[in-house]
Amino acid sequence: MMKLSPSILSADFSNLGKAVEELERYGADMVHIDVMDGAFVPNISFGIPVIKSIRKCTKLTFDVHLMIEDPARYVEDFALAGADIITIHAEADKHLDRTVNYIKGLGVKAGIAINPATPVESIKHLIPIVDMVLVMSVNPGFGGQKYIQYCNEKIKEVKKISDAYNKSLMIQVDGGVDKNNIKEIVNCGANVIVAGSAVFKNNEIEKNIRGLKEGF
Amino acid sequence: MMKLSPSILSADFSNLGKAVEELERYGADMVHIDVMDGAFVPNISFGIPVIKSIRKCTKLTFDVHLMIEDPARYVEDFALAGADIITIHAEADKHLDRTVNYIKGLGVKAGIAINPATPVESIKHLIPIVDMVLVMSVNPGFGGQKYIQYCNEKIKEVKKISDAYNKSLMIQVDGGVDKNNIKEIVNCGANVIVAGSAVFKNNEIEKNIRGLKEGF
Amino acid sequence: MMKLSPSILSADFSNLGKAVEELERYGADMVHIDVMDGAFVPNISFGIPVIKSIRKCTKLTFDVHLMIEDPARYVEDFALAGADIITIHAEADKHLDRTVNYIKGLGVKAGIAINPATPVESIKHLIPIVDMVLVMSVNPGFGGQKYIQYCNEKIKEVKKISDAYNKSLMIQVDGGVDKNNIKEIVNCGANVIVAGSAVFKNNEIEKNIRGLKEGF
Amino acid sequence: MMKLSPSILSADFSNLGKAVEELERYGADMVHIDVMDGAFVPNISFGIPVIKSIRKCTKLTFDVHLMIEDPARYVEDFALAGADIITIHAEADKHLDRTVNYIKGLGVKAGIAINPATPVESIKHLIPIVDMVLVMSVNPGFGGQKYIQYCNEKIKEVKKISDAYNKSLMIQVDGGVDKNNIKEIVNCGANVIVAGSAVFKNNEIEKNIRGLKEGF
Amino acid sequence: MMKLSPSILSADFSNLGKAVEELERYGADMVHIDVMDGAFVPNISFGIPVIKSIRKCTKLTFDVHLMIEDPARYVEDFALAGADIITIHAEADKHLDRTVNYIKGLGVKAGIAINPATPVESIKHLIPIVDMVLVMSVNPGFGGQKYIQYCNEKIKEVKKISDAYNKSLMIQVDGGVDKNNIKEIVNCGANVIVAGSAVFKNNEIEKNIRGLKEGF
Amino acid sequence: MMKLSPSILSADFSNLGKAVEELERYGADMVHIDVMDGAFVPNISFGIPVIKSIRKCTKLTFDVHLMIEDPARYVEDFALAGADIITIHAEADKHLDRTVNYIKGLGVKAGIAINPATPVESIKHLIPIVDMVLVMSVNPGFGGQKYIQYCNEKIKEVKKISDAYNKSLMIQVDGGVDKNNIKEIVNCGANVIVAGSAVFKNNEIEKNIRGLKEGF
Repeated sequence: MMKLSPSILSADFSNLGKAVEELERYGADMVHIDVMDGAFVPNISFGIPVIKSIRKCTKLTFDVHLMIEDPARYVEDFALAGADIITIHAEADKHLDRTVNYIKGLGVKAGIAINPATPVESIKHLIPIVDMVLVMSVNPGFGGQKYIQYCNEKIKEVKKISDAYNKSLMIQVDGGVDKNNIKEIVNCGANVIVAGSAVFKNNEIEKNIRGLKEGF
Repeated sequence: MMKLSPSILSADFSNLGKAVEELERYGADMVHIDVMDGAFVPNISFGIPVIKSIRKCTKLTFDVHLMIEDPARYVEDFALAGADIITIHAEADKHLDRTVNYIKGLGVKAGIAINPATPVESIKHLIPIVDMVLVMSVNPGFGGQKYIQYCNEKIKEVKKISDAYNKSLMIQVDGGVDKNNIKEIVNCGANVIVAGSAVFKNNEIEKNIRGLKEGF
Repeated sequence: MMKLSPSILSADFSNLGKAVEELERYGADMVHIDVMDGAFVPNISFGIPVIKSIRKCTKLTFDVHLMIEDPARYVEDFALAGADIITIHAEADKHLDRTVNYIKGLGVKAGIAINPATPVESIKHLIPIVDMVLVMSVNPGFGGQKYIQYCNEKIKEVKKISDAYNKSLMIQVDGGVDKNNIKEIVNCGANVIVAGSAVFKNNEIEKNIRGLKEGF
Repeated sequence: MMKLSPSILSADFSNLGKAVEELERYGADMVHIDVMDGAFVPNISFGIPVIKSIRKCTKLTFDVHLMIEDPARYVEDFALAGADIITIHAEADKHLDRTVNYIKGLGVKAGIAINPATPVESIKHLIPIVDMVLVMSVNPGFGGQKYIQYCNEKIKEVKKISDAYNKSLMIQVDGGVDKNNIKEIVNCGANVIVAGSAVFKNNEIEKNIRGLKEGF
Repeated sequence: MMKLSPSILSADFSNLGKAVEELERYGADMVHIDVMDGAFVPNISFGIPVIKSIRKCTKLTFDVHLMIEDPARYVEDFALAGADIITIHAEADKHLDRTVNYIKGLGVKAGIAINPATPVESIKHLIPIVDMVLVMSVNPGFGGQKYIQYCNEKIKEVKKISDAYNKSLMIQVDGGVDKNNIKEIVNCGANVIVAGSAVFKNNEIEKNIRGLKEGF
Repeated sequence: MMKLSPSILSADFSNLGKAVEELERYGADMVHIDVMDGAFVPNISFGIPVIKSIRKCTKLTFDVHLMIEDPARYVEDFALAGADIITIHAEADKHLDRTVNYIKGLGVKAGIAINPATPVESIKHLIPIVDMVLVMSVNPGFGGQKYIQYCNEKIKEVKKISDAYNKSLMIQVDGGVDKNNIKEIVNCGANVIVAGSAVFKNNEIEKNIRGLKEGF
C-alpha cells in the first residue's frame, strides 16, 4: 500500500490550485505541505491561508509537515484549514506526547518527524501511538538536496518498531528521493514517499509520478 | 500621487497569478505582500517561494511587509525573490538604522512599520532616511479588522515630519480602510493605501478598486 | 475617590484566605495580585491556581498585575480565575493595543504598566483606551524597595493626559509607598495606591490601612 | 520503604498551611510542590514566596518539582525557601550534570524529571549521581490527567539502572496515580508516589492517604 | 575636560598588554572595551578573561561597553574583572533603572548606550542618574563604519538634559569619529570620544592620539 | 598519534601571541580555542577578532570549540578568522547534520561536542561523518574543574563506534585532564587531549607539556 505525497514546495505558487488538481488527476495519494516559519528552519514558506485556499481544489489527503517551533501553538489553525495529517518535529517541541494527543483529539492524524542526525530511539515511546513517522532524509528548510545515505538505517529501525508495536504506521521519507533510489528506500521500510522536484520537474507531473510509482 | 496597494492576503491562493494580473489590469499601483512568521504575529501566512512564483505574473511594484522577528535575517532572500520595497517593523528589530541601510544597499526601497500603540516619535530619526513609513491602523496578523481611529493622529505626525525632512516619503496605511473612511485617511496625509477585503470582496476587483480610488 | 489596593505578595501564603478577608474587613478597596513568571522579572511568585482558590473568600476587586512575558498567552486564564482588572507591562508585549482590547473583550478592565525608566510617552496612544495606568515606582520583581523619586513626574504626566482624554482613568502607583510619602504621590495624581509591607507589617492590617488612608 | 508525596497543586490555596499540616498528620511522607513558570509548561502555578510561607507549618520533606526553563537560575532561591529535594527537567536544561551538582552543593537532594516521551536513556549518566528520578506519567502543566500506560516500561528501566548503580535512588512517579493503579506502578519499581486529586478529593485527606498507602 | 577612550577592538589582540600600555603612555584617558555576545550584535568579540588579563597592564579607566543581551547577568563579573565604567544598551534590558542601580551598587560607574535610531527621549529618566550616556554614531557590532550625521542632534539633546539635570554627565560618542569630524562632535556636546581605527591606524598610536586631541 | 591541544583560556591574554608561540615551540600539536557567548554557557570568553590577531603568530592547527548557541550563524566568520577545526555542541544546534556539512563545505574540519550528561547515542549518526568528537569531561563554561569520572565510559563508546565506522576520527577530551589521569583517559580511546591550567600553571609551559606528553 505504497503512497506518494508530492511536495507542493516545488510547485508554481502562481497557480497552486491547478498543481493540486493535477496531482490528484495523475495519481498522487496525498499532498505534502511544507510549512516553514523561518525559526525552526531558515526559510519562510507558507502557512494557513494558502492551505485554506487550495483545500477546495482537491480531495487528496493534506499531509501537513510543520517545520515550525512550538507547533502546538498552531495545530488547531492547521486542522481548521483542512489538514488531514499534521506532523511535528521532535526537535521543535518539548512536550511531544501532549502535542501528538492534541492533534489526535482534533480528529486529525498525527505524525512525528526527526531530522537526519536525530536517532530513532529518541522517539521510541511515540512510534506506537502516532499515525506516521517522518524520517527526514535531507536537512529540512530547502528543496533540491541529495538523499542522506545513513537514513536507510533509520528507516529500518522505524520499520522494526512498527512491525512490533504499530503495524498500520505510515513510514514517510522526505528528501532527495527520485526514480533511482526509491526502490531501495521502499525496501528499507518506507511506505509514504515525499517528492518535490522529482514530481514537478520539466512540468511533466504525469510522467514523473508514473516513473516514481514504478519504483514502489 | 495617491497609490493603492492591494493586499493579496485576501486573494485566493489557489490562483494567485490570476489575482495579481487582475490587480495590474484594474489599476492597482502595487501589490502588498503580507509575510507573517508566526512569531512576531500569531499567524503564518506565506514567504519567499510564493513571492518568487508570482514575480513573473506582473510588473507591479512588490511592496513586501515583513511581519517577522529579526527581519535582517531574510532581507536578502526577499530582495532576491523580487521585492521592490521591504518594510520592517520597528518592534521587531533592535538595529533599525542598520537594517534600513542594508535594505537600501541591496537596491530595494526601505520602509518602516509601526504597530498601533507605537508612537511616531520612536522612529523619528528614521523618517528622513526611509522610503516609506507604514502606519498600522489595525493590529498586524489578521485581515478583516476595523480601522483604529486614533491612528489618524499618527498619520498626521508622520506627514508633518515628512513635509520637513523627506518630501518624497511614501506614507502607507494598512488596516480597515474602505470606501467610507479612505478620504479621511488620505486627508490626514496617507499617500499609499493598503486594502485587502475592500479590494477582493465579492470577487469584484475592478469595481472595488475603482470605488477606493474615487476616495482619493 | 482614592483607592487602596494592598499587595498580597507581602501576606502570609499559608493562610491567604484569612489575609484577603481581613483586607476586605478593614477597608481595602481592591486586592493587588502580583503575578511573576521568572522571565519578565527575576522571581516566580504565584499564578492561576492561587487566584482561583482565594476568589471565593472576598468580593473585593481582583487587581491582577501580570509581570510576565507575552501576557496575551494567559489573559483568558486569569480572567476565568476571577480577575476584575488585568494589567500588562508595556515592556512585555509588542502588540499592546491588541492585548488591551483582548482583555476588554473578556469583560475585564484593562491596565497598562510601565517600568520606572519607561517614559509615559511610549504608551500615550493607550491612555485614552485603558481603564488603568500603573506607574511602577520601584523595579518590579521584589518587595520592600524604596520609592523612586523621579516617578512623581511620570504620575503628573499620566494625570495630565487623563484629564484631557480619559477622566475616569485609574492611575495606580506601586512600590515604596508608605504613610510618609502617600500624600505627595496622591497630589501628583495617583488615585489607586498599591502597598505591600506598609499594609501587612507587624501584622497590624487594620491600623496600617487606616494610617495609609489618612494620607489620601 | 514506599513514600507518598501529595501534590499541593490540588489543595485549597486559601488555606495552604492547614492543608500541609493535615498531610503531615495523616501520614504523608513528603509534600510535592509543583512550580510552573508559564514557559516550560503552559501554566503559572506558584513559586518562592508560597514555599517560604508554608515552610514553618510542617517538618515534612519539601519535594520541589521545577517545571521551569533554565532552572539553575532559581535553584538557590528555592533552596533558601526551604526545599529539601529539587527536581529539574531534562528537557529544560542543557547542562544537567552542572545543575545537579549545583543543587547538591547547596546541601539539597537533586532529582531529574523526564517527560512521558523522553527516553530513560537520555539521562542514563545522571541516574547514578542523582537522589531521585521523576518519571512523569502525564504531561506536566495540569492536574487531573490519566496515567500514560507506556510509562510502566520507563519505570522498569530506571529501576534496572538503579539496581545496578544507585540502590538508594528514589524513583518517583507523578500523574494519574490512584488507588486502582498504584500497586502496578509500585511493582514496576516506583518508590515515591505523587498524587494530587487522589489525595485531596472530597476533602477526605485522611481516608485518601490511607487508601493509597494500602496500594503500596 | 575632554576625554579620549580608544577602543581596543582595533588593537592587535596578540599583544594587547602592549597596546594598552601605549595608550596610557601616549595620553589616552580611558580604554574603551567593546564586549559583544553574538546575540545583541552579530559578532562575538571578547569578554571577561581578556579584561582580567589586561587589567594589570594599565591604570587607565576601563570603560566597558556591553553590547550584550540582558547585561545584568554579567555586570558583577565585569566589575570583578576590573571595569571602572559599565555601559549597558537601552535596547538590551527591560529593567534599565534596576541594572543602572545594580552597577552603581557595585562601586562602578554606570552608563547607558542608545543605538542610532533610538531617540534620546526613551532614556530621559535615566540621564539624571547615570554617570555616562553613550550615543552610538554607528550601528554597534563592527568597526570601520562612517559617522551617522543625524546623531549630532541626539548629542545636542543629551547635552541639553545634562545641562539641566546632571552637569557632570559624561557624554560619549562611539563610531566613525576621526580628525575631520571630531571638533563638530565635541561642539555638539560630546566630552568622551571613542575611536578605534583612528587611534590604531598605521600603528602610529602616538601621532593619532595627538591628532585627535587637537580636535578637542 | 596522540595530540595535545592546550586551551588558551588559561593563557595570559595580555600577551597571547607569545603564549601561542611558546605552545608551538614546546611541542603542542594544536591550539584549543574556547569561544563562549554567555548564552550557551554562562561566560563570555572571546571570539573572532582575537582569533584573527593570533593567526599570524603560529602555524599550529586552530581547534575552535564553539560553546555558543546556533553556531551555524558564525561558522563562516570563524573559518575566515583562521579556524582549522570547528567544533559545535550537540545541545546548541537542532540541525547538526546540516551544520557539520556546512563546516566541511568551507574546507574546515568539523567536530561535534557533547556535554557530560549527553549520551553518545544521541550523536551516533554523526560519528561516521565528522572529523572529531569532543567528549566534555567537565561542564563547559569555566576552567579549573575536576574530571568527571563517568566520562571514561563515553570515551570508550566513541572509540568503539570510531573503530567500526571512522578509523581516522579524532577523539578529543576536554576538562580536568592532568598528569595523573591522562594515561587512563588515553587508554579509554582519547587521542586529542585538551589541557588548560595543566599546561599554563606556574608559567612552566615547556615542563608542563612534556609532563603531559609523557602520559600519552
